[in-house]
Amino acid sequence: MEDKLTRFKSILSDLVDLGHSMALLGWDQQTYMPPGGAEDRGNIQSTLSRLSHEKFTSEEMGSLIEDLVPYAGTLDPDSIDACLVKAVKKQYDKQTRVPAEWVVENAKATTLAHHVWEQARAEKNFDKFCPHLEHMIQLRREYADFFAPYDHVYDPLLDNFERGMKTAEVQAIFNDLRPQQVELIRSISEQPQVDDSFLHQPFPEKDQWAFGVDVITCFGYDWDHGRQDKAVHPFCTNFGIGDVRITTRVDPNWVNPALFGTMHENGHALYEMGVDRSLARLPLATGASMAVHESQSRMYENLIGRSLPFWKFYYPRLQEVFPSQLGNVSLETFYKGINKVHPSFIRVEADEATYNLHIMLRLELEIAMMEGSLEAGDLPEAWNSRMQDYLGVTPPDDALGVLQDVHWSSGLMGYFPTYALGNLVSVQLWERMQADMPDMEEQIERGEFASILGWLREKVHRHGAKYEPQDLIQRVTGSTINPQPYVRYLKSKFGAIYEL
Amino acid sequence: MEDKLTRFKSILSDLVDLGHSMALLGWDQQTYMPPGGAEDRGNIQSTLSRLSHEKFTSEEMGSLIEDLVPYAGTLDPDSIDACLVKAVKKQYDKQTRVPAEWVVENAKATTLAHHVWEQARAEKNFDKFCPHLEHMIQLRREYADFFAPYDHVYDPLLDNFERGMKTAEVQAIFNDLRPQQVELIRSISEQPQVDDSFLHQPFPEKDQWAFGVDVITCFGYDWDHGRQDKAVHPFCTNFGIGDVRITTRVDPNWVNPALFGTMHENGHALYEMGVDRSLARLPLATGASMAVHESQSRMYENLIGRSLPFWKFYYPRLQEVFPSQLGNVSLETFYKGINKVHPSFIRVEADEATYNLHIMLRLELEIAMMEGSLEAGDLPEAWNSRMQDYLGVTPPDDALGVLQDVHWSSGLMGYFPTYALGNLVSVQLWERMQADMPDMEEQIERGEFASILGWLREKVHRHGAKYEPQDLIQRVTGSTINPQPYVRYLKSKFGAIYEL
Repeated sequence: MEDKLTRFKSILSDLVDLGHSMALLGWDQQTYMPPGGAEDRGNIQSTLSRLSHEKFTSEEMGSLIEDLVPYAGTLDPDSIDACLVKAVKKQYDKQTRVPAEWVVENAKATTLAHHVWEQARAEKNFDKFCPHLEHMIQLRREYADFFAPYDHVYDPLLDNFERGMKTAEVQAIFNDLRPQQVELIRSISEQPQVDDSFLHQPFPEKDQWAFGVDVITCFGYDWDHGRQDKAVHPFCTNFGIGDVRITTRVDPNWVNPALFGTMHENGHALYEMGVDRSLARLPLATGASMAVHESQSRMYENLIGRSLPFWKFYYPRLQEVFPSQLGNVSLETFYKGINKVHPSFIRVEADEATYNLHIMLRLELEIAMMEGSLEAGDLPEAWNSRMQDYLGVTPPDDALGVLQDVHWSSGLMGYFPTYALGNLVSVQLWERMQADMPDMEEQIERGEFASILGWLREKVHRHGAKYEPQDLIQRVTGSTINPQPYVRYLKSKFGAIYEL
Repeated sequence: MEDKLTRFKSILSDLVDLGHSMALLGWDQQTYMPPGGAEDRGNIQSTLSRLSHEKFTSEEMGSLIEDLVPYAGTLDPDSIDACLVKAVKKQYDKQTRVPAEWVVENAKATTLAHHVWEQARAEKNFDKFCPHLEHMIQLRREYADFFAPYDHVYDPLLDNFERGMKTAEVQAIFNDLRPQQVELIRSISEQPQVDDSFLHQPFPEKDQWAFGVDVITCFGYDWDHGRQDKAVHPFCTNFGIGDVRITTRVDPNWVNPALFGTMHENGHALYEMGVDRSLARLPLATGASMAVHESQSRMYENLIGRSLPFWKFYYPRLQEVFPSQLGNVSLETFYKGINKVHPSFIRVEADEATYNLHIMLRLELEIAMMEGSLEAGDLPEAWNSRMQDYLGVTPPDDALGVLQDVHWSSGLMGYFPTYALGNLVSVQLWERMQADMPDMEEQIERGEFASILGWLREKVHRHGAKYEPQDLIQRVTGSTINPQPYVRYLKSKFGAIYEL
């Protein structure tokens, strides 16, 4: 059995290496690849992805798993080997249930849908995209049926992004959260509005870049094992625990994207950098889930990066870098400016108080389309009326509405809720960390971040993907995902800012 | 049979894609990888290289080749399919003749030898490296024996770098060349020496970079399908015909490395960029051999880049970029300076007139060691006495002598002669091109390089590796590799510069 385990792990290590090689192809594509390299790059990526799929779904893998599952049952369930067999078995069952024909048809349909979506968005023409969206939904219904019976047709999709999470759980969480967040925004809208015009003025790119580097160096980003490059759509990626890179975009006339984007990607990176090396070259050497990952990025971006203690320490430095832009802006004005609540059309630009509502809207529409209670053709109307209900605004066109996000054109149904769940988890962890380290705010005010990172490493990072996300969150916080800490956080923070 | 050919090509395309993925891992390692990424990177590279080897030497591949060889014999021998089957069969026979145990032992021994060589060179201590060199030679004798019977024990090594080339051919070429080149250097050494001190002064890096970019843009380097980055040891690499990248190093106090290095790598890149797309994703989509590749880089670096017509056009531009450095240096002084002949210890810094002698020395020593007529322990003495015979200088220590190059510590015996052969081929092609385009020099003087690139594309580049190198050179120039054109070139060029 030891030999089988060794062989099992050796195949998995090959797969991890192939995956990291694909990650580098992707990183390069989004950072340095010349435009004329796209065709060859597509071929390379699809070959590696096919070889990887063949290797993972091979008969040998199937029989190793069959032999190892009973053996893993005799091990400490928290041991690496037990967690590994369990996670891989689940992944194997999923991948082998989906027929190759579906994979091929889906790949073709997705490529086409994405292409048409780009045009449709540019032309603000939903009708053009609509038949492709219908096809995407149809394919996802077929996909779900490979996993029948299920509690909910959306479950198999959700599970691809948030292992073990059920649609009913997410709905319960969001139904609890939504009215409280809607009410908060309503109260805020009745108060005098905040000025953030000083954030929109020329800030030299070089200085923005250097300031971001300075901040995340203090956070603990390890430049011996990472680097930062420019990309249009920032992301974090890695090619092993020892090489975790981030990308950032810089807007020369708006300080926010680089400043908060860098902190955000740093949060993802610290997670991957902190995985214990005993998990190296195993598929467990990554974050527990999208939501847990997002909890780390949002923690650094928002709970730290948009907090008053942080700026008590860092604002004088920022003013020193940008004296003509911020020399006459007080700390209080700056703090309120970066936390301005402003219901708007675009999710990726949303503030903390409104962000989750953008997500809930999408989730509800995804579920309705999967259930068949909403036709793709009725989507724009459903979108716009919910925008009005939740945020009090109605998009003037579909490019600022239903066509804004890439996800549906890429078949990524099931992905959206993880963004909002990540926000909730970030505050659950934060409350626990604060209980363990009562002087946390004072540390932040002194520019000290080592204890925070140490706590996250110990409680979250080192475990990688050993535990399913809800299990991990329960172990660390004593509860599964729960919206109340986030609601408390929003009320307290924005109550103070808007004097509610 | 069509199905078998399709399957054969599809496996080969997978292998090409894997190879390009490995090339990207290598490019990244030498340009942007953070130091802490090295361990993971080594794992990824060795996994992909093993998967690639397994795929190529599989039984399926063997039986496809067996079936396709007779079929290919019925095709036009110049057709892609016929050339492909022939080239792949040869490669397959080579790879399957070498036992896995040898590959493993060699990989270990090479890693160790390289490590020890780095120390030995730093300590100027050949004795430390000597046993590892002996082991490298021993392993290469074993390697050669896998291909017995052979005409010469060095043949199987040479064939790895220059397909189809025999030791006896190379020896005949070099025996013809050596005395003529030694005599030329002797004559030059009796003439007044040239001043090149103006090349060694501060040149701002940014300006050096921009000037190199300007030059190779005029040469035809296609930035839509390539890019240039910094690397300690410059190289050219590609990830498909559509993405061919170069790297350059810049010395802030010496204008030569970036200037001529950029032109050199550009020559390699234009070759890979010019391969016909009908060869895409086949192993023929690359240069015909190391020597033919080097002929392209040396042509742009030396035959164009160190020529008087080129600088008649470009020198005013260079003076404009570096007015304080070169404003008072005349074109003639500059031209002589960049062509200064100066017998020295280090191959990579050698001028055109002495370069090949560095190579011949190495080749003779490699052959003698492989034959067993020279013991590794006697190498420094043999090296130094040949340096005195050929170049009239004796290295003061082994770091400037026998330990200077990385090749022997990396097991790359058989590689060196391709550098010198490339020089010879470059002038053979040049003479033919001049016969076809009598106004070539005038074009260069006007800064026009499109016809040169067009000629090279038509005659050399588009064919990729379809033909074996000697066959290709014969087709284009009417002769296999021949040293006389190079000798004529050296005598004419340096005769003028040194008034011989």
